[in-house]
Amino acid sequence: MALEVRARAPGKIILSGEHAVVHGFTAVAAAIDLHTYVYFRLHSTSDNDDGLVELELKDLGLVFSWPSQRLREMFSELGLPSKTCSPECLKVITSLVEELSFPEAKIGLSSGVSAFLYLYTSIIGYRPGKVRVTSDLPLGSGLGSSASFCVSVSAALLALSGAVCADNQQKGWFVMRENELELVNKWAFQGERIIHGKPSGIDNTVSTFGSMIMFRLSELTRLKSSGPIRMLITNTKVGRNTKALVAGVSERTQRHPDAMAAVFTAVDSISKELSDVIQSAAHDDVSITAKEEKLEELMEMNQGLLQCMGVSHASIETVLRTTLRYKLASKLTGAGGGGCVLTLLPTLLPSTIVDKVISELEACGFQCLKVEVGGKGLEVCFT
Amino acid sequence: MALEVRARAPGKIILSGEHAVVHGFTAVAAAIDLHTYVYFRLHSTSDNDDGLVELELKDLGLVFSWPSQRLREMFSELGLPSKTCSPECLKVITSLVEELSFPEAKIGLSSGVSAFLYLYTSIIGYRPGKVRVTSDLPLGSGLGSSASFCVSVSAALLALSGAVCADNQQKGWFVMRENELELVNKWAFQGERIIHGKPSGIDNTVSTFGSMIMFRLSELTRLKSSGPIRMLITNTKVGRNTKALVAGVSERTQRHPDAMAAVFTAVDSISKELSDVIQSAAHDDVSITAKEEKLEELMEMNQGLLQCMGVSHASIETVLRTTLRYKLASKLTGAGGGGCVLTLLPTLLPSTIVDKVISELEACGFQCLKVEVGGKGLEVCFT
Repeated sequence: MALEVRARAPGKIILSGEHAVVHGFTAVAAAIDLHTYVYFRLHSTSDNDDGLVELELKDLGLVFSWPSQRLREMFSELGLPSKTCSPECLKVITSLVEELSFPEAKIGLSSGVSAFLYLYTSIIGYRPGKVRVTSDLPLGSGLGSSASFCVSVSAALLALSGAVCADNQQKGWFVMRENELELVNKWAFQGERIIHGKPSGIDNTVSTFGSMIMFRLSELTRLKSSGPIRMLITNTKVGRNTKALVAGVSERTQRHPDAMAAVFTAVDSISKELSDVIQSAAHDDVSITAKEEKLEELMEMNQGLLQCMGVSHASIETVLRTTLRYKLASKLTGAGGGGCVLTLLPTLLPSTIVDKVISELEACGFQCLKVEVGGKGLEVCFT
Repeated sequence: MALEVRARAPGKIILSGEHAVVHGFTAVAAAIDLHTYVYFRLHSTSDNDDGLVELELKDLGLVFSWPSQRLREMFSELGLPSKTCSPECLKVITSLVEELSFPEAKIGLSSGVSAFLYLYTSIIGYRPGKVRVTSDLPLGSGLGSSASFCVSVSAALLALSGAVCADNQQKGWFVMRENELELVNKWAFQGERIIHGKPSGIDNTVSTFGSMIMFRLSELTRLKSSGPIRMLITNTKVGRNTKALVAGVSERTQRHPDAMAAVFTAVDSISKELSDVIQSAAHDDVSITAKEEKLEELMEMNQGLLQCMGVSHASIETVLRTTLRYKLASKLTGAGGGGCVLTLLPTLLPSTIVDKVISELEACGFQCLKVEVGGKGLEVCFT
């Protein structure tokens, strides 16, 4: 059995349908080629059982560790591993996490550490080991950083537990079998529940399976992009209060039920059209350009509808305005009220123009990330 | 019979529903307290019949005149007055107008002069007289300048023809009787047809009757505002091509029939809500503020839907952005693509803030007009 594994899982964007999805309408999410990377080393059984379970969040310069013996004592009465985190289990985890000290600005990390402790003890038990995490994804910006954390951690833990990839001899990065991905996805969802309370399950599913997903109520449909879509993600770095934004849209819906039902219906229709366009074949420049123009129009329409819901923000408008000057279509992605904005980068757009747009946006204090949308999901590597 | 009369007729704004109305959905228009003023003096019958029919557009420094004998000769075969302008009649008018020279920038005036010639000869005949026109309204900015021109000219001509106000002894400005207003409105509509080809009839109806009008297909419903609404109109001075904008929305509707049908349905619902809010009573600061907040939310929603239709413009976004900084709600009014933007000015908003907003907008090169919305329509004055 291997004692070392790496896993990488992508972040995600919402291509269309944010907010409307909360009210039962269709949305589309897609993987982006920005990843969370996990390295997991299980200490050999010859190591002392008194060893540590360690979590290193390398980008943040933070290391947390727990004597495995202590974890065994604290969790023993709960009868782990359990497929869901019971209130009793969460209580134990919370007490362990409360002992840690987080830098003031990183207080939100505690739920991620809680998720880690749950996944580790549930999948691996109390055997000492070390998990090191790095990520391309800005935290808490709606790009699915927590889901890609949960997916990559779950995958690494499951791989060394033998639950997945037991007979795998592949060299380099590879994609697990479908049923193994499904198992990883289930565990990752449990992690997401600890972090978010009532996650939709979209983020972890996109991170696990990659490509694109159309979702409505609890129904997920996996889509296949016929080619990569290039986008620019602009992180306004304006902190959002997702709950307040969602509540604001719900209140507006109560005040204007007919108008908002029609707005959501329009979004639903846009999401469906978008998924058709994404799946349509395009092989030459002419058809690719036509496809991109369709996507741009749908993005512009969706952005107008989001403004109608009242979730835009001055920082988002600044990005829209800047990219519009280059005739590029943009829309907010995620909850709005700040956060990230997507801009489609047409295939034939010269890189000099892309660089110009980026430097203008960066001059506003924003962070720009060039991504490919709809690519691979979770991958692991034993070598 | 009087030989002198004055008439003034207000401009209009579209409060909600522009573009959607073209596709059969509800819109709301309202009068604004910016007027076109007409002074009309009919030469006494003792004057030589060879006298002139004169039109002075005072703001533009333009005077046009025609020997009344010449008009008589040219129109005599057509059997005027006619209730609509026949193709033959339009041909005669066009040949008369083609003889005139307009300043390069004012070439669009020719259709207004054509409308004048039609109204004058149809209502007054060939008796010499002088019409002087001034206006508060910027031309061609979607504020109904042409309709208020047609209404005030028609009213003045009808008043001295004896068709309306024949027995009126009132001093100062007064409002005509309902059936007289209806007659003026019919003539004004004929003038609008010459200027616009296929006008909706909304602009002249609002200008004639004042207050607010809800309209859908050919059905007009007059609304009563329970109190004045203060707004700022910002004229971006960016020229619009209304036909191209309307065509663009229609093309988008063909490409995305389901989504756009839902968008129009949302607008329809907003227009109906708006008309309810406008008609609702509000007597103290609390209820007035609540009413204004409702209007602001509906304006914000409508603006998002207009962006979804693709008719916004960088200049409009600049206005939105500027007013948003003062927490004021704005929406484009009319065709979009430039033109004018409405901003609600809450009753309790200090005038120092209004002045600040205006000076910021004027610094962008825009023209700002403070107006009261939903006030009086056409008025005339004999003294």
